[in-house]
Parts: sequence; structure tokens; C-alpha cells
Amino acid sequence: MALVNEHFLKMPGNYLFADVAKRVGAFKAAHKRADIISLGTGDVTQPLAPAVVAALHKAAEEMGTPEGFHGYGPEQGYLFLREAIIKHDYLPRGIHFTANEVFINDGAKSDTGNIQELIRWDNSVGVTDPIYPVYLDSNSMIGRSGVKDESGHWSNVFYFPCTAENHFIPQIPDKRVDVVYLCYPNNPTGTVLSREELKKWVNYAIKNDALIFFDAAYEAYIQDPDIPHSIYEIRGARKCAIEFRSYSKTAGFTGVRCGYTIVPEEVTAATLDGNRIPLNPLWLRRQSTKFNGTSYLSQRAAEAIYTPEGQIQTKEGIAYYMYNAENMLRRFRRLGFEVYGGENAPYVWMKTPNAADSWTFFNELLSRTRVVCTPGVGFGPSGEGYVRFTAFGSHEKTDEAIDRIERWFK
Amino acid sequence: MALVNEHFLKMPGNYLFADVAKRVGAFKAAHKRADIISLGTGDVTQPLAPAVVAALHKAAEEMGTPEGFHGYGPEQGYLFLREAIIKHDYLPRGIHFTANEVFINDGAKSDTGNIQELIRWDNSVGVTDPIYPVYLDSNSMIGRSGVKDESGHWSNVFYFPCTAENHFIPQIPDKRVDVVYLCYPNNPTGTVLSREELKKWVNYAIKNDALIFFDAAYEAYIQDPDIPHSIYEIRGARKCAIEFRSYSKTAGFTGVRCGYTIVPEEVTAATLDGNRIPLNPLWLRRQSTKFNGTSYLSQRAAEAIYTPEGQIQTKEGIAYYMYNAENMLRRFRRLGFEVYGGENAPYVWMKTPNAADSWTFFNELLSRTRVVCTPGVGFGPSGEGYVRFTAFGSHEKTDEAIDRIERWFK
Repeated sequence: MALVNEHFLKMPGNYLFADVAKRVGAFKAAHKRADIISLGTGDVTQPLAPAVVAALHKAAEEMGTPEGFHGYGPEQGYLFLREAIIKHDYLPRGIHFTANEVFINDGAKSDTGNIQELIRWDNSVGVTDPIYPVYLDSNSMIGRSGVKDESGHWSNVFYFPCTAENHFIPQIPDKRVDVVYLCYPNNPTGTVLSREELKKWVNYAIKNDALIFFDAAYEAYIQDPDIPHSIYEIRGARKCAIEFRSYSKTAGFTGVRCGYTIVPEEVTAATLDGNRIPLNPLWLRRQSTKFNGTSYLSQRAAEAIYTPEGQIQTKEGIAYYMYNAENMLRRFRRLGFEVYGGENAPYVWMKTPNAADSWTFFNELLSRTRVVCTPGVGFGPSGEGYVRFTAFGSHEKTDEAIDRIERWFK
Repeated sequence: MALVNEHFLKMPGNYLFADVAKRVGAFKAAHKRADIISLGTGDVTQPLAPAVVAALHKAAEEMGTPEGFHGYGPEQGYLFLREAIIKHDYLPRGIHFTANEVFINDGAKSDTGNIQELIRWDNSVGVTDPIYPVYLDSNSMIGRSGVKDESGHWSNVFYFPCTAENHFIPQIPDKRVDVVYLCYPNNPTGTVLSREELKKWVNYAIKNDALIFFDAAYEAYIQDPDIPHSIYEIRGARKCAIEFRSYSKTAGFTGVRCGYTIVPEEVTAATLDGNRIPLNPLWLRRQSTKFNGTSYLSQRAAEAIYTPEGQIQTKEGIAYYMYNAENMLRRFRRLGFEVYGGENAPYVWMKTPNAADSWTFFNELLSRTRVVCTPGVGFGPSGEGYVRFTAFGSHEKTDEAIDRIERWFK
């Protein structure tokens, strides 16, 4: 008799954003003419850069000719892209990688979800709270998270709360945690970690033989030159950290699907009898077995980001969205809201007025203003009482959303 | 201390095709001018159909405009593609599905590798032998396969040998197996299963409350009108089977990355205390959590396969490759080789002359003729003494490869 993986049954029924979409859908059904503006899901809205579009056309052209056709690529990704990454994203910061340490993927969600396959099922997991739901959901599916209690905490997970009270700086644990997920610039709070704070985590990992899964999907949004873009800017990180990057937010690739993961050759985990096993060949084995590379066209498109035109155009795209973040911060503050993040990240994290809980505020905001946000509690227990606004709308829509909120609160 | 998933360490170091590539690479290094023809990896070689290329251009164009830009699509895939699939691939065979039962993916390798996440880690697994390595490798990574003995058999896996002796027809097991992987038309043997034989498997699954994971990636190559293209042509299959399809071989999409999986709403697995759990919402939960959909461009390209021009052009592509299969069968037989498959599939399965073992013949073939095949034993113990040739080369290269083999053996 085939038995189901019962760990799935311990999880919340829906992925957070599916839940939000469902509520918005229900609202739309009841208010057919409602002009809804979504500042909910962190999805970009602006067209691809011309350099990227040109690369897509060129690749499409090639695929239609016998000479230019490309079938299966290397599971790890094409060398042209892996080399561009090393040259443009790491070398300028004094970080050296070989092409073997770079793995092209179809976006950071897949890899941040799959990376947990490399570690024993009973390792303990730590996350800053609130956090992108994929880290814990993927661990829960295999039973690593334990069981969820009424407060929304999993029994085998360590939570490092990040709230206004501690200025969104997670405290280093005083006990052993095997694997820590960090996401900086942070989704959902939009806050960042200074070099000194990040150093504490790397030191913790080295001292405790822990691993850090570092999600840097939003690094391109960092404006402050003192904030690290990569965990490998910290000495020792190559021994304990795996880093995830994505073109989704850097270059509007949410529909194109391309990103990458760095697994340095020095990163190891232990066997029960104390042998050190390098994770790089294990990840290659995992990817070769369950993944066939992302589209050739997407990889060519990603390569175009690194051309001089591509660099200028994608920077303009980021500036476009950061204008929205600044606009929200400024106008929300003027209205008396407590807002955080948004300075080095495309997310603005708002404390709900009158200490409403997240879903109550979400519902009220939707019904009063037809604006969609994301309820903070969906990102974890410490997100309760907050909501997230994304900067990924158009200038016009974002302005209009703020206008509506202003009219509601004035 | 982070502990490694030691199940990885029980696996063969490399994925089969990585192993083949390594050997060919070593040969190339030693024979720099060697003109190698690969009939090894099952990768297509002919350009994309014009209708598909046009769709890629159109989608690239759209992505560069504010109106046409597409960010995240539905994790389950765009409705336009799911509806085309239902209409063209199933309705004409009298099979009805709703859009909720179709999941677009980035190729069948990912989904056939990931589907095992839905079942308990200690379910037993059965495979026809030889078989596409992904099924067992993905189960081994989570410990479900048990341990591998010297003969290449995993301890918790049931093998259904398919050899010339039993005409490549797997025997229905006389004991309980929880999950059975079937791939028809078969990779690697190129053989097919008649309606009557497939019916036996569905009946077995229903009687034993087992699941069938049915890989139909090569269905487009079926020439014989009596051979089922889908397991759902068999009554009862909707209750016990999940089917995987791919555009990789149907339309040369190995570099484009798109396929789909059918998870009927009736398919269930049991909890330990006997509740029936539908797998469809679990798969949706899995996909929403660890996958962000395949590229918008790839989905538009797949949609183009279903246009009248797309249908004609992709059928021509399949006929092109099937010419190679016929050519190999005919000429290899004339040379006195025992060859199988190749009539309803793009693979020709050859018994090695003089009962050489697979890798010995692989090496000799490479050094004598500079032709690459795939060693049968790489697909499982019952593949020993066989090699696989793919029909995915150009007519010229395939002919030339056969010429060389002819010269060697004449």
C-alpha cells in the first residue's frame, strides 16, 4: 500500500502567496469593478531591459538553425554565464571562485528549497523571524521542522526574532543550531545586516560547525556602500556558507527564470563518524539527477545583464523601483506610520496602525482602498502586527496606492 | 554540527551521462583530432520548428513592453498551455481532465525526480530493469532505495527485468510493491507495452493499492496505432497513476525546458491510520513551495506546438529521427547484430557482439570507430551486455556512424 508523506499534512494548507491570491480573488468576485492595486507579491512589473530582449531574440534565432541549436546544456549551467558571474559579481569585491563553484538555476526559490536535501533529516534549523516561507516549508516537507504549535512555531526550528524592538537585528543563538538561513537584504522586512553583524554569524557557524544558507536575492538593491553584498566578503564564509542569487529582482527575470548558487569547494558537513564531506560534489550530483539546467534562452538573457548596456539598463530598473521605496517610506512616515526597510531593499515593512493583527489590516486595507499588501504573520510569528509593501509596482500605481491610503487615514 | 545526508554517499559518484561524458572527454584529450559521433546521450540535434521560433520571438517582444511583460506565472503553469494540453493530448483519446490536474514543469527529469517527495520514505519501489537512472537515484538520495549490493541492486527496490529472453515484457510482481515506475515507450530499450500488458499493471496497482509513476516522455514516437500513448487510456488509471510528459523529445525542447505532469484528482495515498489523501493538492503545495514555474517564453513556445503549423512541423521532426531508428535497425540487423526497440521509440537497444560487457563494448566502439553509445549496464543490472544508440543525430552523422561500425565488423 502506497503511504503518503505525512509531513505534508502538518503544513499550512497553502503557500502564503497562494493564500493572498485566494483572498484577493474572493474580493474581486464580490466587487467586480474594483480597481485593485497589488503591492503584495514581490513581483516585478517593468519590461525587460533592451539588452536582455535583444539576447532573447538572438537565442531564439540560433535555436531555429542547425548551427545555432542548443539541446541539453551542462546541468551546472553554461560556462559563458558562470564566468560572467565570477568576473562581474565576485572579482570586483576581491572574491575568487572557479566555474565549478557556480551553479546556474531556474531561480533562487528552487535552490533555497532544494538545498536542504544535502543535510541529514534531523539537523536543527534556525531562521530569522519573519522570513521567506520557502526555507521552513521545504524543511517541513521532509519532517525536519518537527511539528507546528498554536503560536505558529515549529518544534525543531530556532527562531531569531527581528522586530522594531531589536532594530531587526537577529541575536546570535546561545545554543547549537546546525543550519541557519539568512536572507539579506531581508525579505520581508527590507532591512540589512552590517558587516559586523554578518561577521558574528560567520564566526558562530565556524565555531559551532554550522552551515549558513545565505539568500542574497536582493543584493542589487543595496545603496549603502558599507553593506556587504555577498557573505563571502566575510573571512571564513567559504568554509561554512552557500549563497543564493537571482536575476528575478536584479533584472526583472521573474518570468524568465534564472539565478545561481555558489557552493564553495571548502564547504563541508560531517558524517556521523566524523568524516568531512564537501558539499560541492553532492550538490552537483543532486542537480545532475533532478535538474536539466534552465533554458538556453534564459542563460543567454542573463549573460546580457553583464554587458555594458545591460549593466546600465538593469541599474536604471533598480533605481526605478527604489524610487517607489523612497516614496512609500517618505509619505507613509508623513502619515505617522511606523515603517522600516526600503533603503537597501525593495520592501517596506509597516507596523499596522492601532496594533491590528496582520490579516485584519490586510482585509481592511483591501476593502477600504483596494490595495493589496502581504500580511506579516505569513512570514512567521514575529511578523504578526506588520505588513509588507513591495516597491515593484509602476510609479503611477504606487503613487495612486499611497494616495488612497492617505485618503483613508487623513 | 551540521551533518551530511549520508544517503548521497551510498550512490554511484556520477550521474550516468556525466560518466559517459567524462570517458569521452578523456578519449578526446588523448586523440585531439578524432572525429567523434555521439549516439550516446538522448539529446536532440535538429533546430526548433519555425512555429516555435516565431512564438519565442513574439514572447521576447512582449517581455520588452509594459503591456506584454510577464513576471511570475502561476506555479502550476499558464492556463493557455494547460488547456491546449487537455484539448490536444487527451481529449482526442477520450480522456477528460480539468486544468487543475495539469502541472507545467521545466522538463520531465525534474518532476520524475521530485515526485517521490509525496510518499513516505519507507515505501518500497519497483522499476523495470534497465531503466532511466533518475527514478532510482532520486529515491536513493532520500534513503528509500536502501543499500546497493555488488551486483548493482538496491536492497529496497524490486526489479522487473526486461531482456531479450522475456521480449522486454516486465512480469507483474507476485508480492506487494508500493510504487512502480514505468516508462513507455521505454528508455533505454526503445520497446513498448501493449494495451493488455499495461492493463495488467493498472490492475495490479488498484488491487494492491500501489501507485504508478508513468513516464510517457517518448509517446510522440509511437507509430503503431494499437499502442497506448497515455496510461489513462486504461480504465482505473486515474485512481493510481501519475503521468509525466515532456516536449524535449516531442519538439526538440531539451534546451528550452518545458514539459508537464498529470496528477488526477482521484489519485490518493494512505496515511498510517488509513485515511486517503489526494496527491493533487500535495503536488500543488510542493510545486508552489519549491518551483516558480518554467519560463514564460518556454510556455509560449510549447503552446505553439499545438497550432496547426506546429503540429505539422513537430511531426516532421519526429519522422526525421524515426528515419534514423529504422536505418539503424535495418543496417545493424544486416550486420548480424541483435537489436531491439526503435520501432515506436527513438532508441535502438543492441546486444553487444560476443557477449562483451557494456563498458567494454562502449570503449571498443569509441576507440575503433569514434562512435559514442550508452552502456546498458548504466541503466541497471539487466542492461549489462547491451548498449543504447539514440536516433537523435542528423541523418548524415547517423549514416556515417553506421558506416564506421560496418567497416569495423565486416
